[in-house]
Amino acid sequence: MFVILVYDINEKRVQKIHKICKKYLTPVQNSVFEGNITQATLRILKDELKEIMDENEDSVLIYKFRTKKYYDRESIGIKKPSHEDLFL
Amino acid sequence: MFVILVYDINEKRVQKIHKICKKYLTPVQNSVFEGNITQATLRILKDELKEIMDENEDSVLIYKFRTKKYYDRESIGIKKPSHEDLFL
Repeated sequence: MFVILVYDINEKRVQKIHKICKKYLTPVQNSVFEGNITQATLRILKDELKEIMDENEDSVLIYKFRTKKYYDRESIGIKKPSHEDLFL
Repeated sequence: MFVILVYDINEKRVQKIHKICKKYLTPVQNSVFEGNITQATLRILKDELKEIMDENEDSVLIYKFRTKKYYDRESIGIKKPSHEDLFL
Protein backbone atom coordinates (compact mmCIF):
# COMPACT_ATOMS: atom_id res chain seq x y z
CA MET A 1 0.00 0.00 0.00
CA PHE A 2 1.23 3.49 -0.85
CA VAL A 3 0.46 6.29 1.59
CA ILE A 4 0.79 10.05 1.75
CA LEU A 5 0.82 11.37 5.32
CA VAL A 6 0.38 15.05 6.18
CA TYR A 7 0.54 16.34 9.73
CA ASP A 8 -0.39 19.59 11.41
CA ILE A 9 1.17 19.38 14.87
CA ASN A 10 1.81 21.88 17.66
CA GLU A 11 5.50 22.81 17.56
CA LYS A 12 6.01 21.38 21.07
CA ARG A 13 5.45 17.90 19.66
CA VAL A 14 6.41 18.26 16.00
CA GLN A 15 9.97 16.94 16.38
CA LYS A 16 8.79 13.72 17.98
CA ILE A 17 6.07 13.22 15.36
CA HIS A 18 8.58 13.88 12.59
CA LYS A 19 10.95 11.27 14.02
CA ILE A 20 8.22 8.64 14.24
CA CYS A 21 7.07 9.25 10.65
CA LYS A 22 10.64 9.12 9.41
CA LYS A 23 11.09 5.61 10.79
CA TYR A 24 8.46 4.30 8.39
CA LEU A 25 8.11 6.82 5.54
CA THR A 26 10.12 9.22 3.39
CA PRO A 27 9.94 12.98 4.05
CA VAL A 28 8.99 14.98 0.93
CA GLN A 29 8.13 18.39 2.34
CA ASN A 30 7.80 19.97 5.77
CA SER A 31 5.00 17.92 7.33
CA VAL A 32 4.53 15.62 4.30
CA PHE A 33 5.72 12.00 4.11
CA GLU A 34 5.12 9.23 1.61
CA GLY A 35 6.03 5.61 1.06
CA ASN A 36 5.01 1.99 0.79
CA ILE A 37 3.87 0.42 4.02
CA THR A 38 1.93 -2.67 5.08
CA GLN A 39 -1.37 -2.47 6.95
CA ALA A 40 0.35 -3.94 10.02
CA THR A 41 3.19 -1.42 10.00
CA LEU A 42 0.77 1.43 9.39
CA ARG A 43 -1.12 0.34 12.50
CA ILE A 44 2.13 0.50 14.51
CA LEU A 45 2.87 3.95 13.06
CA LYS A 46 -0.59 5.22 14.00
CA ASP A 47 -0.30 3.83 17.51
CA GLU A 48 3.03 5.59 17.98
CA LEU A 49 1.60 8.86 16.64
CA LYS A 50 -1.43 8.67 18.93
CA GLU A 51 0.83 8.26 21.96
CA ILE A 52 2.46 11.62 21.25
CA MET A 53 -0.36 13.57 19.60
CA ASP A 54 -2.76 15.77 21.50
CA GLU A 55 -5.90 14.84 19.62
CA ASN A 56 -7.53 18.13 20.61
CA GLU A 57 -4.75 20.19 19.02
CA ASP A 58 -2.98 18.06 16.46
CA SER A 59 -4.08 16.56 13.18
CA VAL A 60 -2.75 13.82 10.90
CA LEU A 61 -4.20 12.95 7.51
CA ILE A 62 -3.35 9.68 5.75
CA TYR A 63 -4.20 9.01 2.10
CA LYS A 64 -3.98 5.33 1.21
CA PHE A 65 -3.61 4.04 -2.33
CA ARG A 66 -3.50 0.48 -3.58
CA THR A 67 -0.39 1.18 -5.62
CA LYS A 68 2.04 4.01 -6.23
CA LYS A 69 0.34 4.79 -9.52
CA TYR A 70 -0.07 8.49 -9.13
CA TYR A 71 1.25 9.65 -12.43
CA ASP A 72 2.92 12.82 -11.27
CA ARG A 73 4.13 14.68 -8.21
CA GLU A 74 4.90 18.28 -8.99
CA SER A 75 6.78 20.68 -6.78
CA ILE A 76 6.74 24.49 -6.96
CA GLY A 77 9.19 26.62 -4.98
CA ILE A 78 11.90 25.45 -2.66
CA LYS A 79 12.56 21.95 -1.45
CA LYS A 80 12.30 22.65 2.25
CA PRO A 81 14.73 21.03 4.64
CA SER A 82 13.06 18.56 6.95
CA HIS A 83 12.23 19.46 10.54
CA GLU A 84 15.06 17.22 11.57
CA ASP A 85 17.51 19.29 9.56
CA LEU A 86 16.10 22.44 11.12
CA PHE A 87 16.08 21.38 14.74
CA LEU A 88 18.57 18.61 15.40
CA MET B 1 -7.85 14.44 -12.75
CA PHE B 2 -7.82 14.23 -8.96
CA VAL B 3 -5.20 16.23 -7.09
CA ILE B 4 -3.94 16.61 -3.55
CA LEU B 5 -2.20 19.92 -2.94
CA VAL B 6 -0.06 20.64 0.13
CA TYR B 7 1.55 24.00 0.74
CA ASP B 8 4.21 25.26 3.11
CA ILE B 9 4.04 29.04 2.86
CA ASN B 10 5.45 31.92 4.89
CA GLU B 11 2.65 33.30 7.07
CA LYS B 12 2.90 36.68 5.32
CA ARG B 13 1.50 35.08 2.18
CA VAL B 14 -0.48 32.12 3.49
CA GLN B 15 -3.88 33.82 3.46
CA LYS B 16 -3.56 34.76 -0.20
CA ILE B 17 -2.39 31.27 -1.15
CA HIS B 18 -5.23 29.72 0.82
CA LYS B 19 -7.77 31.90 -0.99
CA ILE B 20 -6.41 30.96 -4.40
CA CYS B 21 -6.46 27.22 -3.62
CA LYS B 22 -9.99 27.48 -2.27
CA LYS B 23 -11.25 28.86 -5.57
CA TYR B 24 -10.38 25.58 -7.29
CA LEU B 25 -10.09 22.87 -4.60
CA THR B 26 -11.62 21.77 -1.30
CA PRO B 27 -9.74 22.40 1.97
CA VAL B 28 -9.27 19.22 4.02
CA GLN B 29 -6.68 20.26 6.63
CA ASN B 30 -4.60 23.34 7.33
CA SER B 31 -2.46 23.59 4.20
CA VAL B 32 -4.03 20.56 2.44
CA PHE B 33 -6.52 20.76 -0.42
CA GLU B 34 -7.99 18.17 -2.75
CA GLY B 35 -10.38 17.93 -5.66
CA ASN B 36 -11.04 17.17 -9.28
CA ILE B 37 -9.53 19.65 -11.70
CA THR B 38 -8.73 19.80 -15.42
CA GLN B 39 -5.20 20.22 -16.74
CA ALA B 40 -6.16 23.69 -18.00
CA THR B 41 -7.57 24.84 -14.68
CA LEU B 42 -4.61 23.41 -12.81
CA ARG B 43 -2.35 25.48 -15.03
CA ILE B 44 -4.33 28.61 -14.09
CA LEU B 45 -4.12 27.68 -10.40
CA LYS B 46 -0.35 27.20 -10.63
CA ASP B 47 0.09 30.51 -12.41
CA GLU B 48 -1.88 32.30 -9.69
CA LEU B 49 0.15 30.58 -6.97
CA LYS B 50 3.46 31.49 -8.61
CA GLU B 51 2.44 35.15 -8.73
CA ILE B 52 2.13 35.21 -4.93
CA MET B 53 4.73 32.65 -3.86
CA ASP B 54 8.28 33.50 -2.99
CA GLU B 55 9.92 30.53 -4.64
CA ASN B 56 12.94 30.88 -2.35
CA GLU B 57 10.84 30.56 0.80
CA ASP B 58 7.58 28.82 -0.09
CA SER B 59 6.78 25.36 -1.28
CA VAL B 60 3.76 23.72 -2.92
CA LEU B 61 3.47 20.01 -3.65
CA ILE B 62 0.83 18.65 -6.04
CA TYR B 63 0.02 14.94 -6.32
CA LYS B 64 -1.93 14.13 -9.47
CA PHE B 65 -4.02 11.00 -9.92
CA ARG B 66 -5.95 9.79 -12.93
CA THR B 67 -9.04 9.17 -10.84
CA LYS B 68 -10.19 9.64 -7.27
CA LYS B 69 -9.59 5.98 -6.56
CA TYR B 70 -7.66 6.26 -3.37
CA TYR B 71 -9.49 3.78 -1.26
CA ASP B 72 -9.23 5.58 2.04
CA ARG B 73 -8.46 8.88 3.65
CA GLU B 74 -7.99 8.56 7.35
CA SER B 75 -7.86 11.40 9.84
CA ILE B 76 -6.39 11.31 13.36
CA GLY B 77 -6.95 14.13 15.83
CA ILE B 78 -8.90 17.31 15.30
CA LYS B 79 -10.40 18.58 12.10
CA LYS B 80 -8.61 21.91 12.00
CA PRO B 81 -10.49 25.00 10.95
CA SER B 82 -9.24 26.43 7.70
CA HIS B 83 -6.93 29.44 7.62
CA GLU B 84 -9.87 31.44 6.39
CA ASP B 85 -11.84 30.58 9.51
CA LEU B 86 -8.85 31.53 11.63
CA PHE B 87 -7.95 34.83 10.04
CA LEU B 88 -10.95 36.32 8.27
